[in-house]
Amino acid sequence: MSTSSSRKALNIGNINPHLLKAQYAVRGELAQRSEVYRQQLATGGDELSFDTVISANIGNPQQLDQQPITFFRQVLSILEYPALLEKEGLFPEDVRERARVLLKEVGSVGAYSQSQGCLGIRRSVAEFIEARDGYPADPRDIFLTAGASSGVNTILNTICSHPATGVLIPIPQYPLYTATLALTNATPVPYFLDEATAWSTDAEQIRSEISKAKAAGTDLKCLVVINPGNPTGATLTESGIEAVIALAAEERLVIMADEVYQTNVYSGEFHSFKKVLRNMQKASPGVYDEVELVSFHSVSKGMVGECGHRGGYFELVGFDPEVQAQIYKLVSIFLCPPVIGQCLVGLMVNPPAPGSPSYELYQKEYNSIFEGLKLRSRALYDAFLRMEGVKCQDPLGAMYLFPTITIPTAAVEKAQEEGRRPDEFYCLRLLEATGICVIPGSGFGQREGEWHFRTTFLAPGVDWVGRLEKFHEGFMNEYR
Amino acid sequence: MSTSSSRKALNIGNINPHLLKAQYAVRGELAQRSEVYRQQLATGGDELSFDTVISANIGNPQQLDQQPITFFRQVLSILEYPALLEKEGLFPEDVRERARVLLKEVGSVGAYSQSQGCLGIRRSVAEFIEARDGYPADPRDIFLTAGASSGVNTILNTICSHPATGVLIPIPQYPLYTATLALTNATPVPYFLDEATAWSTDAEQIRSEISKAKAAGTDLKCLVVINPGNPTGATLTESGIEAVIALAAEERLVIMADEVYQTNVYSGEFHSFKKVLRNMQKASPGVYDEVELVSFHSVSKGMVGECGHRGGYFELVGFDPEVQAQIYKLVSIFLCPPVIGQCLVGLMVNPPAPGSPSYELYQKEYNSIFEGLKLRSRALYDAFLRMEGVKCQDPLGAMYLFPTITIPTAAVEKAQEEGRRPDEFYCLRLLEATGICVIPGSGFGQREGEWHFRTTFLAPGVDWVGRLEKFHEGFMNEYR
Ligand SMILES: Cc1ncc(COP(=O)(O)O)c(C=O)c1O
Ligand SMILES: Cc1ncc(COP(=O)(O)O)c(C=O)c1O
Repeated sequence: MSTSSSRKALNIGNINPHLLKAQYAVRGELAQRSEVYRQQLATGGDELSFDTVISANIGNPQQLDQQPITFFRQVLSILEYPALLEKEGLFPEDVRERARVLLKEVGSVGAYSQSQGCLGIRRSVAEFIEARDGYPADPRDIFLTAGASSGVNTILNTICSHPATGVLIPIPQYPLYTATLALTNATPVPYFLDEATAWSTDAEQIRSEISKAKAAGTDLKCLVVINPGNPTGATLTESGIEAVIALAAEERLVIMADEVYQTNVYSGEFHSFKKVLRNMQKASPGVYDEVELVSFHSVSKGMVGECGHRGGYFELVGFDPEVQAQIYKLVSIFLCPPVIGQCLVGLMVNPPAPGSPSYELYQKEYNSIFEGLKLRSRALYDAFLRMEGVKCQDPLGAMYLFPTITIPTAAVEKAQEEGRRPDEFYCLRLLEATGICVIPGSGFGQREGEWHFRTTFLAPGVDWVGRLEKFHEGFMNEYR
Repeated sequence: MSTSSSRKALNIGNINPHLLKAQYAVRGELAQRSEVYRQQLATGGDELSFDTVISANIGNPQQLDQQPITFFRQVLSILEYPALLEKEGLFPEDVRERARVLLKEVGSVGAYSQSQGCLGIRRSVAEFIEARDGYPADPRDIFLTAGASSGVNTILNTICSHPATGVLIPIPQYPLYTATLALTNATPVPYFLDEATAWSTDAEQIRSEISKAKAAGTDLKCLVVINPGNPTGATLTESGIEAVIALAAEERLVIMADEVYQTNVYSGEFHSFKKVLRNMQKASPGVYDEVELVSFHSVSKGMVGECGHRGGYFELVGFDPEVQAQIYKLVSIFLCPPVIGQCLVGLMVNPPAPGSPSYELYQKEYNSIFEGLKLRSRALYDAFLRMEGVKCQDPLGAMYLFPTITIPTAAVEKAQEEGRRPDEFYCLRLLEATGICVIPGSGFGQREGEWHFRTTFLAPGVDWVGRLEKFHEGFMNEYR
């Protein structure tokens, strides 16, 4: 990009160079082009060869098929307009009662809350964690956030102190991590997940990356684990988590456990890092006492799917109180997370209890979303099995599949001519031909010489899967 | 702070040093202590010498007296629970219609929107700006944000490229600016507002700071103006703005115009930087074409007062398209601003029109909030006039008064003993004695040897003003 032509004081040659370096493919060129197509379709769009854009690029359930959970939204509507409480019979009694409790806690959803989030809601989160893990949690260690993204940003901005600060991140990864590390000007230290064993996390692999990074002078501070994984869907076993924690203890690394997909598990079981850590601390007194863990959760994923509300939290475990005070100061500069989003966190962690008027509907909606995700993941997976040169791991968790594709040499050459990576070339052709937007594997990281793409399995129906299969066949025929 | 005692991998000695440096008094020690008092009062609190905490430390209208505007909240309640649309007679027809339009634009408020914010809402913002200024605005140049705070953070993170990057900020200032500059490791270049002339902004004063900063090797990039001012309430005149723009053009500085208090003007008139710039461009073709301006607005202030919803926008004027694309990438990493907050921006810029069913109530609520603010500012101002050694400028705008206080030598000495600044000492004593939380002038910046505090005039009633007067008298008697 040439800069000499700009007559502007601020130009690409003198803005923050770390921003220039950051990459975030999930909302990059392909996503932007898909938005252009969507606009074109809305205003005619006869020149396009498809009639809908399928945004399989981003885990955004309510943009597609998923309906919000009724109980949550009924409570939120009262929080916005408390006069609805006076209308008898409009809402079930437990909805009204919950709204009253939350209103008491936040006052008005239009008021700034405490910087760390409303105390009453942090108490609910602590109770949820305790019920989930069997170990207590302290509301003072919980920070409500504007989605997990903002929590990750807060923690990385606290940890990263100089360019050699190293943060271990899984590859493939959700690119929030590399992008934020680019912005904070720290060093991402990639460790590979193993596709052959269902994208498992291997502590030995991490250990060898640690040795290499140390030899290169990196000041390793932190280890990121995404569990269940994005884009892989893999869920760590209990012993896998133990191995990671033991390694972190040995190497004195802060663990960032991104657990936003904790309820999106279709095979196996979710174990929280906090629970496994507490188990280890109990089993070996003294050995793991100093481990520092921060775990993230969000209203965006799971069966909640309320991305637009920007709600989430992180829990600090074993942090130095002085550091915790600095984290408090950092979040306070931006005043507070969105209060309606905070309330939604409160609802997510404390849904209708069995026997309450809203329980049955809640269960029904929850289960039907869960079953829908499971079914669609299967349908998509089955389609991949039928496609030439495509390999895919079993759908295990999260909202994504991340198949490997074989790209014919002729297509690789054509991509090079266009100055694109082969997987990018493939995804762009797919978008142009079908309106289906997926993200090339290079946006998440992959081994040299391998090509993948990530697709969500959120889009309803099977029609689009057919479009994808047909495109793939044509692509292979053209370039084989 | 000693660090040697920490057994933690992450400790005060090795976290991000720029975070350590950042200061944000609005939510600092005093605010935190006031929260502790509030908790104590909620659970008995007999040991305290007051029975309510008055949070005059922060412009948070709905935490205090201010009721939300009915039309806004009615629409938002439907957006949260669209089934309410089916209840005939529950809401006025224009509320339902507006909810339908917004739902069409955002789909579900639980879905991530475009990174820059929903296009339909950005169009409404553009129309609002056009109506306000008499010049067109382009939705592509508008970025919806999670409050103005997050917009300021985005822009400063784009501009600040190295430690010598200089940003001119008014003193006193809203400390978001110095805090964010500390975090981005850039150089704040203070220019003083002139208390004697109602806290006016003087381009000559800025010019002389520019010369000094340049001589010191600072790479000046940007000039921040807060208009109307926080904490001063001062509103710039049209010619004052012209002088600032001319200076920015001459010195090739990006102008950041923080206009979140644009409707909080109790004397004089608000002129937007955009309007004045366009006027100048029209009057002197070619001279001001390259000026780069970003202006910020928010749902938190004005008569809207919806701080907890975290909504706002910024408009880029005259920016290099390549830079604009980088700003887009930066916001996309964090996915999108809260969608309910976006909708509230849409409502703020497009309130009920004359003749519509909700118009009358809207006008009534709006005017009553405005008159209430004006009245209370007067009452507080009059009290300051009565207080020994206190001087205060006329209340002109925003939500604050920033009186000068004379602190007796004995109190200054006592403060020194406690290792505190005299104004901090004063504010702490005030809080302990009365439960009234205000912020010392040092949190905003003030001239050497002067002492101020900032108080909002949002708290209802006059009782607390009486408490303040009585405390002040006692304080002066004790230390005189
Ligand atoms: C692994 C992971 N972490 C964090 C996020 C951020 O989600 P949010 O900020 O909406 O909570 C996502 C979103 O897709 C994700 O996949
Ligand atoms: C001058 C000024 N700018 C920006 C803000 C940030 O407000 P918000 O992030 O709530 O829009 C404030 C808040 O008090 C302010 O006073």
